[in-house]
Amino acid sequence: MQRVPPNPAVQRLSLYLRRLEQLAADGTETVSSNQLAASLHRTAAQVRKDLGYFGQFGRPGVGYRVGALMEALRHALGTDRTWEAVVVGVGDLGRALLRFKGFPTRGFQFVGAFDISAAKIGKQFGPVRVQHIDEMPAVVRRHDVRLAVLAVPPEAAQDVADRVCAAGVRGILNFAPSPIDVPPRVAVCPVDLAASLEQLSFQVSAMR
Amino acid sequence: MQRVPPNPAVQRLSLYLRRLEQLAADGTETVSSNQLAASLHRTAAQVRKDLGYFGQFGRPGVGYRVGALMEALRHALGTDRTWEAVVVGVGDLGRALLRFKGFPTRGFQFVGAFDISAAKIGKQFGPVRVQHIDEMPAVVRRHDVRLAVLAVPPEAAQDVADRVCAAGVRGILNFAPSPIDVPPRVAVCPVDLAASLEQLSFQVSAMR
Repeated sequence: MQRVPPNPAVQRLSLYLRRLEQLAADGTETVSSNQLAASLHRTAAQVRKDLGYFGQFGRPGVGYRVGALMEALRHALGTDRTWEAVVVGVGDLGRALLRFKGFPTRGFQFVGAFDISAAKIGKQFGPVRVQHIDEMPAVVRRHDVRLAVLAVPPEAAQDVADRVCAAGVRGILNFAPSPIDVPPRVAVCPVDLAASLEQLSFQVSAMR
Repeated sequence: MQRVPPNPAVQRLSLYLRRLEQLAADGTETVSSNQLAASLHRTAAQVRKDLGYFGQFGRPGVGYRVGALMEALRHALGTDRTWEAVVVGVGDLGRALLRFKGFPTRGFQFVGAFDISAAKIGKQFGPVRVQHIDEMPAVVRRHDVRLAVLAVPPEAAQDVADRVCAAGVRGILNFAPSPIDVPPRVAVCPVDLAASLEQLSFQVSAMR
């Protein structure tokens, strides 16, 4: 039985996958744990340990086959399938996310965008036309949507979270800078952009 | 001498600060470590330990004074001052970041936005007008800018990173989904939006 990988190892899978995609685009067919580690400022031992959670890859003296490892990591992350997702909150950030090319190329397909503002409803952004949030449960059911991206103001976050959970969503990417409560069967990944800048200002202050 | 706080503790400071801001907005004057912990799904012991890295706050039986703790955390994070920042790459995401209200309210002030596209140069987004990237070093010097936000395609990220570092920037928030090499005196905080969705799909797959 495989051990359960710790969160940081799962986060590094995304990093390895990004690097492998670049290598594949450059036509590189094999890569050693040393090369993979060096380009990501990690150690080869950590790369081997992280990948070890997900299977037996690579051969001594040959390294990893780039294509096969990419496929295996996508399978491990669950991105070897398409994930239908909805966006709630179509402000500047919501619009940027709807148009962000990095999502569809990695298997995330937006099938709905929702807001409460009459001025936004009916407008097309990226792949979808904005609908009133009351239409959200029907869209989630019709497309068997598992993921929701919340780009709403903090004061609306909990209410919207309750509504997408009730509709059957199983994972929430939360851009609202406030924590949300969800049922145990729902996963939440918070993305606090201001917090990222705070981390950076802390590091820059500390290095002075 | 204070111990050096580990990165996750610094990340949780932002989380505590968000919660304190909400409490202050609600008119709450004191909060216990238990209350702070419960609303953020942490333990009181962890809250006390995290805050202990940054000073002596709180009194037994009374708890923390919300206003004083907010001030202390802002000082610890370096956000009790204004940080001038520039954005490089004014696509959908760059525009959303320029207009994002969460940055100026936390002390981050954009003083420049740069691109190479003639169609974008001269346009106003949020507080600034887009300029050609060749103008970036002069703006960085004039405003003593320490932070740069990179919202460029992955293939441009390293070149742009080299240019902002050469101009004197000390911290980079990198939205490009590719790692960048910077001199040792420069801090990098990567924000990989697709990776966040991958983490979420991993968790949802694992919970099935």
